[in-house]
Amino acid sequence: MQRLERHASFGGWQEVYQHQSEALQCAMNFSIYIPAHSEHEKLPVIYWLSGLTCNEQNFITKAGAQKYAAEHQVIIVAPDTSPRGEAVPDDQAYDLGQGAGFYVNATQAPWSANFKMYDYIVDELRNLIDTHFPTNKIQSIMGHSAGGHGALVIGLRNPDLYQSISAFSPIVAPSQVPWGRKAFTAYLGADEALWQEYDAVALIQSSRAKQPILVDQGTEDSFLKEQLKPELLSEACHNMQYPLKLNMREGYDHSYYFIASFIQEHIAFHAVQLR
Amino acid sequence: MQRLERHASFGGWQEVYQHQSEALQCAMNFSIYIPAHSEHEKLPVIYWLSGLTCNEQNFITKAGAQKYAAEHQVIIVAPDTSPRGEAVPDDQAYDLGQGAGFYVNATQAPWSANFKMYDYIVDELRNLIDTHFPTNKIQSIMGHSAGGHGALVIGLRNPDLYQSISAFSPIVAPSQVPWGRKAFTAYLGADEALWQEYDAVALIQSSRAKQPILVDQGTEDSFLKEQLKPELLSEACHNMQYPLKLNMREGYDHSYYFIASFIQEHIAFHAVQLR
Repeated sequence: MQRLERHASFGGWQEVYQHQSEALQCAMNFSIYIPAHSEHEKLPVIYWLSGLTCNEQNFITKAGAQKYAAEHQVIIVAPDTSPRGEAVPDDQAYDLGQGAGFYVNATQAPWSANFKMYDYIVDELRNLIDTHFPTNKIQSIMGHSAGGHGALVIGLRNPDLYQSISAFSPIVAPSQVPWGRKAFTAYLGADEALWQEYDAVALIQSSRAKQPILVDQGTEDSFLKEQLKPELLSEACHNMQYPLKLNMREGYDHSYYFIASFIQEHIAFHAVQLR
Repeated sequence: MQRLERHASFGGWQEVYQHQSEALQCAMNFSIYIPAHSEHEKLPVIYWLSGLTCNEQNFITKAGAQKYAAEHQVIIVAPDTSPRGEAVPDDQAYDLGQGAGFYVNATQAPWSANFKMYDYIVDELRNLIDTHFPTNKIQSIMGHSAGGHGALVIGLRNPDLYQSISAFSPIVAPSQVPWGRKAFTAYLGADEALWQEYDAVALIQSSRAKQPILVDQGTEDSFLKEQLKPELLSEACHNMQYPLKLNMREGYDHSYYFIASFIQEHIAFHAVQLR
């Protein structure tokens, strides 16, 4: 594991590392914010999953989360959104291939050799972080857009690993919207029954989990009606009496300006569950 | 004037505009954050000047200033750092030409037709902002690196226009360091006597102004010893009994992670002077 960047930030350190991933069969970057802490102290971790086209940089440069991570004494880890490199399959579209891993384990050629982002996040990266950084092995998960989908799915399927789940502008029902249907057809094949384990709305309907979920969604998000459809999550949670807090934010769009405006509330939400 | 971007942000609006500049003879972008405010309210303005290679985007995406601008009810305007475009002279180096206007009025060919950033900031942009936005025509100025130099020079030379001055990692004595000597030779010519009106340390020594100055400087800034030399500003202010507060910040570097960590204090500092 090699450190690529280290910057003092709000009394702690914003760092970026590269390591060779077994799950993804390529070199992967991740960023990690480590608050100032006493020598033997162990801290909880929030994982942040970014959306389409992003890498490990977007969140740490634009979200303004470090201040609140420092205040609440939580580590934040933000991985890249897919395997990368010349030896990794890709597609010319922004919403498939590199930069668009969708947090699934692909089963279809040519993707199945590298596109195992679900396993990478849940197992390999988490174990790497717990081995090399001062964590207390208690974690939560959050994300944006396709990364909001990732956070919901990974959190719901692993209630023993993640104390709480939050998302900005998530794709809540990928099986029912163009982004998700295109990606799942490519990565998982045509059998839609196999998509359900990666669909938050479907998972809620069969969930034994009851971690609290916080979702923020801007009303002026250009992807709201066709791709995001938070009302489907709201309905599913209502039917199952699942604890969801959905904030519709008047005037906000899909950008990091939206995320920055409300990241303080998300980190505070997780911090309560992590203690 | 054309609006290029508009994003809800911390209850207000982060916008980006383009206009045709007379001073610079080219199209120029600037960004403006406008806090939520009541209908007829007029707000003070802080101008932010960015450093080498930057444009109107860096500050608004990375500094996290909008939260504090909203809290203190101040507008923040961040212009580009030089004239731009195919018809504007340029140089292959990152520290001369486009992206490196150094906030001077160039007198030397080929720069003198476009590179009038001093006039652009002090007169043209300020009048444009006061004409089109809800300002009360009271302003302060701040910046980073070459933009910290710009803020110091512009503030010191216009004590009636700017209530207070602040800078992160500024070039305080451009006449004495490689970045400044290269740029001033190109833009202003070989007569160093003519450089003094663009050199903050020289200006302090003859200043009738006494606006408060706040400077933050990271101790791990890779440009600290060769290009920035805050001790020269500190000495000059001490000799002249000029009100300078210089914070040396242990471990911090030259990046926006440093700026984000302390921008709250800078905006609070200006807000006091602007009321």
